[in-house]
Amino acid sequence: MRIEFWLEFGSTYSYPAAMRIESLAAEKGVAIVWRAFLLGAIFNDQGWNDSPFNIYPSKGAYMWRDMERVCAAQGIPFQRPSVFPRNGLLASRIVCRYADAAWLPDFIRRVYQANFAEDRDISSREVILDCLGSAGESATNIIQEAESAENKLLLRKQTDIARQKGLFGAPSFLVGDELFWGNDRLEDAINWAATPAT
Amino acid sequence: MRIEFWLEFGSTYSYPAAMRIESLAAEKGVAIVWRAFLLGAIFNDQGWNDSPFNIYPSKGAYMWRDMERVCAAQGIPFQRPSVFPRNGLLASRIVCRYADAAWLPDFIRRVYQANFAEDRDISSREVILDCLGSAGESATNIIQEAESAENKLLLRKQTDIARQKGLFGAPSFLVGDELFWGNDRLEDAINWAATPAT
Repeated sequence: MRIEFWLEFGSTYSYPAAMRIESLAAEKGVAIVWRAFLLGAIFNDQGWNDSPFNIYPSKGAYMWRDMERVCAAQGIPFQRPSVFPRNGLLASRIVCRYADAAWLPDFIRRVYQANFAEDRDISSREVILDCLGSAGESATNIIQEAESAENKLLLRKQTDIARQKGLFGAPSFLVGDELFWGNDRLEDAINWAATPAT
Repeated sequence: MRIEFWLEFGSTYSYPAAMRIESLAAEKGVAIVWRAFLLGAIFNDQGWNDSPFNIYPSKGAYMWRDMERVCAAQGIPFQRPSVFPRNGLLASRIVCRYADAAWLPDFIRRVYQANFAEDRDISSREVILDCLGSAGESATNIIQEAESAENKLLLRKQTDIARQKGLFGAPSFLVGDELFWGNDRLEDAINWAATPAT
């Protein structure tokens, strides 16, 4: 079976998940479907106009310390972004438009690294061009396609699907209708996808 | 080093943590310090007058399904309580007053089982007497001591300490000043306690 990775580029714990999902899925022969959605819109439904890590200071202070530990254990660099949460709208539109492109996983990892390892502004076109450039495509053309009215609508529709599927945070993983929330549940989700349905 | 288990009897994920902390800690030679606190008071600080699992329905729906999976994987029975969250004030006062009693871990497990495996009302004196009875002490005397003005104040002070230490949910684990939140972090916390400080 396949695993859907529902991702939001502003989300801290999505970074370690994005950096390891491919090797974990490959080990179990599970295919990955990349799904971008707008977590901010779902937070708005819950009455939040900011990340809960900013709204609830103890939770935020804990998360930043925990991210240091999680990334150290995983052996990936981490730098607390000077702006949080960063706006990943353009990057999400690219994921939405090019969900099946061979270069997409590489692009996704580069955007997360830019945000959480290099403290770069992923809302800027220059940084996104840079992340795309390394993916080896006509980057300006990709951005133009991603910003078409049709694709903008597609991302909003995908966010509606996320709502309907019961998503409330990121990263989230769907295996059929079975929902797993959080980097800590990535292994469980992949095992669920790898186990034949009874 | 020792691990402090900060517990709240209404908290769902504290149940699987309470059921396995002793064997995990014993394997690593780590001593457990039992600390009750009033999570409701801390939720109040955050503007919540109920569990966030009730305030945010998607999060709640997910948690109940996740609890089924987590308890099944751990091999412990689980039944969704017909009242949530249940009031664990009396049980917490007992933990606070008898933190060092030899029968305490057994009592704690029985209260969690009553709430999350047997759907019994842990706010009732009868259920708590039952949980204590099995612990083999003079149960009515224990309750009387736990409800002394002095001990009620002690639990409020312990909740203030929880606030100062940055706790915002349960279960939480403290190893020195290092905070770990959630059943998913129990192994990490125990390993932290087992590793000599450098």
